[in-house]
Amino acid sequence: MNSLRIAHIAPVATTIPPPKSGSVETMTSLLTEGLVARGHDVTLFATGDSTTTAKLAATYPHGYWHDENMWPWELYEMLNLAAAVERASEFDIIHYEAAYYPMSLAFARLSPTPIVQTLHHSPSTAELALWSRYPEAPFVAISNEQARLLSGLTVVDTVLHGIDTDNFTFREHPDDYLLFLGRFTDGKGVLQAIEIAKRVGMRLILAAAEDEYYRQKVAPHVDGRHVVYYGEADFAAKVKLYGGAHALLYPIQAREPFGLVLAEAMACGTPVAALDKGAVREVIDDGVTGVIFQTLEEMANELPRVFDLDRRRVRERAVARFGAARMVDEYVRVYSRIVEAHRVRHH
Amino acid sequence: MNSLRIAHIAPVATTIPPPKSGSVETMTSLLTEGLVARGHDVTLFATGDSTTTAKLAATYPHGYWHDENMWPWELYEMLNLAAAVERASEFDIIHYEAAYYPMSLAFARLSPTPIVQTLHHSPSTAELALWSRYPEAPFVAISNEQARLLSGLTVVDTVLHGIDTDNFTFREHPDDYLLFLGRFTDGKGVLQAIEIAKRVGMRLILAAAEDEYYRQKVAPHVDGRHVVYYGEADFAAKVKLYGGAHALLYPIQAREPFGLVLAEAMACGTPVAALDKGAVREVIDDGVTGVIFQTLEEMANELPRVFDLDRRRVRERAVARFGAARMVDEYVRVYSRIVEAHRVRHH
Repeated sequence: MNSLRIAHIAPVATTIPPPKSGSVETMTSLLTEGLVARGHDVTLFATGDSTTTAKLAATYPHGYWHDENMWPWELYEMLNLAAAVERASEFDIIHYEAAYYPMSLAFARLSPTPIVQTLHHSPSTAELALWSRYPEAPFVAISNEQARLLSGLTVVDTVLHGIDTDNFTFREHPDDYLLFLGRFTDGKGVLQAIEIAKRVGMRLILAAAEDEYYRQKVAPHVDGRHVVYYGEADFAAKVKLYGGAHALLYPIQAREPFGLVLAEAMACGTPVAALDKGAVREVIDDGVTGVIFQTLEEMANELPRVFDLDRRRVRERAVARFGAARMVDEYVRVYSRIVEAHRVRHH
Repeated sequence: MNSLRIAHIAPVATTIPPPKSGSVETMTSLLTEGLVARGHDVTLFATGDSTTTAKLAATYPHGYWHDENMWPWELYEMLNLAAAVERASEFDIIHYEAAYYPMSLAFARLSPTPIVQTLHHSPSTAELALWSRYPEAPFVAISNEQARLLSGLTVVDTVLHGIDTDNFTFREHPDDYLLFLGRFTDGKGVLQAIEIAKRVGMRLILAAAEDEYYRQKVAPHVDGRHVVYYGEADFAAKVKLYGGAHALLYPIQAREPFGLVLAEAMACGTPVAALDKGAVREVIDDGVTGVIFQTLEEMANELPRVFDLDRRRVRERAVARFGAARMVDEYVRVYSRIVEAHRVRHH
């Protein structure tokens, strides 16, 4: 495997890695550092206050989340990508990672270097109809669940997210609570998690930012004893909360393209109890790292099956499947395949 | 003057020309048709339901104002512009006319054909700081007032808007009312117009779309006799309202980069009473097509000076200065200069 010259285009909303949370920013950092460690020549197009061992190409000193004058943000993202395309001949591949919509398409036929884009959300039918006008543009899906929705696009591969498993401390003996971690929305199933906890008579800790949904629908259930509201957890707090949990409850209601909290909890040794929706089946090894239930009823009745899982084995499987190494390897494979196909086509 | 191969990039919000109003869409249509009439080879990048004598390059069947699935609109605008840049070698110049922010910058260094952009709003300092990173990108200002704000950008020329003066019917003998036409905002000075009308004891007709500002601040003054609310005027109604007005009141409070209603009223023979702000001095010939006042007090006291202006002369001057012919000539001059400079630089 030869060394590749890679332009990695981050979102320019905030630093890489992000100050607190930000799944795309975290992923971007992890991938960039992993690629550099493997000897690739990586240029990271990100804000000037980012931290990386790659070459940093900073179009802006800081991100637009921190500066209300940096508006409209779309133009900032666009010119950051353009800065890379302008230097296209210096790279073998350009990887566009920004979370939003595929601006990369605008450059698909103008860039002499192939641009691959990772999709971080699941597009609507109308979005797909537009995007599929550029069938030559390669996309990477973050799950097969997401890939199935991308009909009409050229999905070159599925690469599940990686996490920095070294930073998720394993804990063999948890406390006696259940954990819900995620945004407070109908889709994330926080009310279902409360119902489960009440039925099994265990304490539930909720960790997410307070918002209107919380105040209206969640707060009435919070009594500080059986249902405890922690607030928004920063990284250190998150790791502690995961590690101390008997299980993570994931009674997801929406079909999500991934489920980062599942991988994170598992990396701390904490098994998960999830409903069978979206990418859940791709992230959880049923009976090893968690249990996948068909109904809420089933989850309530059979929750002890989750507690019986071997936490050491949960951690080991999580490291193998969601460690950064696997993700970096798979992206190198994707890049190489695209670069090779491009070479064949243009020579 | 040789024939130019021009890609004219319209906004893709609605048809060209627009079904009702839309200053950018109207201007785009006028310019495109004028260029074709002069023998230029024009390709209009606009929605498929547009009407033009140019070659129509339609990326979309219809505009995103008419289809909530066409979202986010930014990507639609971007791919419409990209469609032209992908065919850059077929054109001598690409003229980006869309109203929003200068997406054209993203292609400034990628397109082998120069892209010129007309700015339809006045940017903030922060926007300018970003845009001026592309000093090679040529901009056209719509007034010297606007051009003065564009420090750091390369403003190749100022071209005042044109209107289709044939469609604005001249009327020599008006009715006895004053007219306010424009959006109901503090900046447009509707409350000042009401004050003027009350002080001079003349009837005032207000024509604009009803909104929250209207209901809260304007409606209390509307009595149906001295202050009359017409509603939103379509094109035919607008021409009638202009023609019947003794004068158009334009007590503008914001520094606007143009003032299309001034040119339109004048084209119907109706003189205007304006405050000396923004581009007013560039649009009105003081003492010929209107009177420019320094204060509201002065406007109230000396309004009869406006009524004394010769309506036939108002119309003639408006046709000479704001007829489409002048605008088209000036754009051809701008294009030719940019194309020539590009040729010299690249040969």
